[in-house]
Amino acid sequence: MGMVGASAGVLPFRTVAIVGVGLLGGSLGMALRERRLARRVVGVGRRQAALDRALALGAADEATVDLRAAVREAELVVLATPVGAMVGVAREAADAMPRSALMTDVGSTKARLVSAIEGLAGGRFRYVGAHPMAGSEKRGVDGAAAGLFDGALCFVTPTPRTDARALAAVSELWQALGARVRCLDPAEHDRLLASASHLPHLVAAALVNSTTPDALACAGPGFRDTSRVASGDPRMWADVCLQNRERILDALTRFEQQASALHRILSDGDEPLLLAWLESAKAARDHHLSQ
Amino acid sequence: MGMVGASAGVLPFRTVAIVGVGLLGGSLGMALRERRLARRVVGVGRRQAALDRALALGAADEATVDLRAAVREAELVVLATPVGAMVGVAREAADAMPRSALMTDVGSTKARLVSAIEGLAGGRFRYVGAHPMAGSEKRGVDGAAAGLFDGALCFVTPTPRTDARALAAVSELWQALGARVRCLDPAEHDRLLASASHLPHLVAAALVNSTTPDALACAGPGFRDTSRVASGDPRMWADVCLQNRERILDALTRFEQQASALHRILSDGDEPLLLAWLESAKAARDHHLSQ
Repeated sequence: MGMVGASAGVLPFRTVAIVGVGLLGGSLGMALRERRLARRVVGVGRRQAALDRALALGAADEATVDLRAAVREAELVVLATPVGAMVGVAREAADAMPRSALMTDVGSTKARLVSAIEGLAGGRFRYVGAHPMAGSEKRGVDGAAAGLFDGALCFVTPTPRTDARALAAVSELWQALGARVRCLDPAEHDRLLASASHLPHLVAAALVNSTTPDALACAGPGFRDTSRVASGDPRMWADVCLQNRERILDALTRFEQQASALHRILSDGDEPLLLAWLESAKAARDHHLSQ
Repeated sequence: MGMVGASAGVLPFRTVAIVGVGLLGGSLGMALRERRLARRVVGVGRRQAALDRALALGAADEATVDLRAAVREAELVVLATPVGAMVGVAREAADAMPRSALMTDVGSTKARLVSAIEGLAGGRFRYVGAHPMAGSEKRGVDGAAAGLFDGALCFVTPTPRTDARALAAVSELWQALGARVRCLDPAEHDRLLASASHLPHLVAAALVNSTTPDALACAGPGFRDTSRVASGDPRMWADVCLQNRERILDALTRFEQQASALHRILSDGDEPLLLAWLESAKAARDHHLSQ
């Protein structure tokens, strides 16, 4: 995992097309406009009502349901749909994009996606995968915010086929948006994120699903925080889970082993082991995640 | 679970003794003083350094390591030590307290504690158990804050042996501190809180303990929130878990069944079931925990 420091000198972009103007796409549009990192932001979506809302909230300068028209003059095309729809969108955009254009995405899983889009790209356009670690339990452009990426970690996932200037341009974009950019191999990204991001969503959902309504009525700040991400968009997370199924199963298996170990400790009423188990969690969290 | 609306007309208390001036006890002392709900707050602890710190932060008017001296003039004695130490403290305080005095506590588990302290109390003093659902991953009086209970849920746990005026007085105190007071039977409290509060701590710790350091380095806001409570005080939580072991094991078993169900769904790559499972969690959380 390396830090990226190169400057490609490409900013501001002339026209950026953002396909999917929801939480992430909308926030990106707002941030590009507010920071003047693009002269023109074109939002692309399937429903006119959502596009009107994106325009009203300042997430784009123009908006259209016509993907091909939107990307025709784009210097940068950003895929911000649910990850399962990205390859289809990339295929359609590929035909209409200028040869010199650059494509990137904001998908939470990378290995399959990067491989598929690189296959599409051939020599026709340049592509670099990205994954800004920002989000919210909110959904759609109404949850979008220009500051969403400020201070966030953003992974860029080059491969041996990645054009170096394209990598520098995408990295520079995310740095200009306030993100801390790190390079990761796509497969390594998916392995690490299965634990760091995908598993917590599933654990939060399992916690809610195992809790009866009368107990939910007694929930305090602890339950609220532990379960927050379970309020995320089910469609988006189902996509992520299926794309990164094998890695998530590995992480879930390790988690289930910890739950079994805990079950045994509690059954035995083993105080020293319980204390050591809780202390190990606190030490690891405080070390890696202290504010 | 009933709302409490009675007014006992006991506020402000003359002398309140708080045994254990940590996060909860310290916050209680600060709030009592700031809201003028006690004329005099006496903090009791085992280490002089911690008591000096509590005084410096305004958590008490006076502080002492001498429990008997502290409770001799108390109208109200609040147990705010780790829950495993409360019965011992109550026993020692019982001998020195005035006959008219009232005892309460802020312990996270109630059934064993309430039964043990009611056994001690006999006719010597009046006791009502309480559990304010407030806390923090911070520890000790340095994490204390006068506003900690504002808007929090606070359970009071009367039994058939509870004096009605004592119940009204303790309820009135917590309402005056800004909490929403609810009555629960002690055993019912422990059953509900095993799911609503104790299990989330253990799930958060299991999540951290199953995550490798390289993945922890990739954690974003989702992992941070889901694991926040794992940074809580291990000693305190070990106490809670052992006091409420059977109920927590029931809740943990239900949670493990959800994790297994998820494992099967992912192994099968069953998209409709995965989506339904995620949607059920989102619906339950949004219904019960929307801000």
